Amino acid sequence: MSNSFEITFLGTGTSIGVPVIGCECAVCTSDDPKNQRLRSSIYVQTPEIKLVVDTGPDFRQQCLRENIAELDAAVFTHEHSDHIMGFDDLRRFTVRDHESVEIFALPETMRRLEVAFDYVFNGENRYIGYLKPIPHEISGRFEIGDLEITPLPVTHGKVETIGLLFSQKEEARLAYIPDAKKLAPESVEQIQGAPVLILDALQPNEHPTHLSIPESVEIARASCAGQTWFTHFSCRADYRVIEPDLPEGIRMAWDGLKIRL
Amino acid sequence: MSNSFEITFLGTGTSIGVPVIGCECAVCTSDDPKNQRLRSSIYVQTPEIKLVVDTGPDFRQQCLRENIAELDAAVFTHEHSDHIMGFDDLRRFTVRDHESVEIFALPETMRRLEVAFDYVFNGENRYIGYLKPIPHEISGRFEIGDLEITPLPVTHGKVETIGLLFSQKEEARLAYIPDAKKLAPESVEQIQGAPVLILDALQPNEHPTHLSIPESVEIARASCAGQTWFTHFSCRADYRVIEPDLPEGIRMAWDGLKIRL
Repeated sequence: MSNSFEITFLGTGTSIGVPVIGCECAVCTSDDPKNQRLRSSIYVQTPEIKLVVDTGPDFRQQCLRENIAELDAAVFTHEHSDHIMGFDDLRRFTVRDHESVEIFALPETMRRLEVAFDYVFNGENRYIGYLKPIPHEISGRFEIGDLEITPLPVTHGKVETIGLLFSQKEEARLAYIPDAKKLAPESVEQIQGAPVLILDALQPNEHPTHLSIPESVEIARASCAGQTWFTHFSCRADYRVIEPDLPEGIRMAWDGLKIRL
Repeated sequence: MSNSFEITFLGTGTSIGVPVIGCECAVCTSDDPKNQRLRSSIYVQTPEIKLVVDTGPDFRQQCLRENIAELDAAVFTHEHSDHIMGFDDLRRFTVRDHESVEIFALPETMRRLEVAFDYVFNGENRYIGYLKPIPHEISGRFEIGDLEITPLPVTHGKVETIGLLFSQKEEARLAYIPDAKKLAPESVEQIQGAPVLILDALQPNEHPTHLSIPESVEIARASCAGQTWFTHFSCRADYRVIEPDLPEGIRMAWDGLKIRL
């Protein structure tokens, strides 16, 4: 790979995806592929490491679409089902001898993975074909390959949730915050001047646990990020309507979009 | 609906689906849609009831593909991840006031659902947009709408697993057994002469927890079923190679296949 940092949007949708089952709104019936959104997740590649952030129920479908055949690590932002229920499909990255996937999650999120996927963690299914995780609880900045990752505390409903700041050689590359209603003060500080900011911007109207598009525009402006990409959209976020009116430097992401730094 | 009993195959694949992430075999790289398999599940419609058997991680994708906008019940065969991890997406069938989804599962399977999806069952998320289940533990024959359903005990690895015999007005319609290595003697008896038998037939070669195609041919023959459809295939089961050589009355199912009685 000639680029030193590449991001692929595996999904840009909220918990139920878009189209929404049974919904007949203009976005859910839209043919525009930018209005079709699997559950939010990104794949990050550097010369040294390949990782995914979150493994929602669409994870297998996303790997097939993007021809992902290699993965070293999975990092989790929080425990909600739309971010973890594809966890078992990580098994395809531990099919060879001595292969494993490094799992990074907050203690609360790790407990949830251990409970929902007990057979993965209980040490009984270690033979070929089953997922062999190496769990690491996130308690501060950590390293994977040539990446340094700093957790960015946010509030998002009742569960402990983080965004992630990715740096290489102490230089910020990407702040990824897919689920947030409010950023902690230290997170606001950490994302200042990031070359790329990817931010929850659920829909035009307010929501109790997610940032709205106007709220996220405010955060993006204050961050002075190089480029901001919104993600985690509901079907109230019509690409055709919202994208043209966003301020300069702020755009709506879509499934399959790649950003290279 | 003019037919009294309709089956739609939502998926006919094994736990990791086909194509398999990272696999370059002839089936996984095949363009034949009959070699492309989401996780095994069926949707059953009668004049009185619409139900799904199992909700694997592909459940949302399957509902969208088949335009499923109504669902009264979900019945589970066992607790493995490829059969339950799409459970949260049932929420789209409880969006209106007083709507709920009836959940039928063995006690062991219900415990697993309650643990993996604790927020669904703990009574805290009862507002619009969240899944509202009505759990029923299976302990013998039960009724949903105009259907009588008889659990068919089978062995399948370590977890309690059943197939399901669907009858209307005491007349057998369908025996659905997606995951089994061996049928209990009472199950062998119950499926005798069923108009439709859908049976696990993982691949040509033997497997410790699934019936192979030769093993399932034996069971199908002994059952004297009207028509037998194999399901739950790995990528060792090439539709183009295996289907032409199956005995009369036995066929390989594919995703999207409908059977009307």
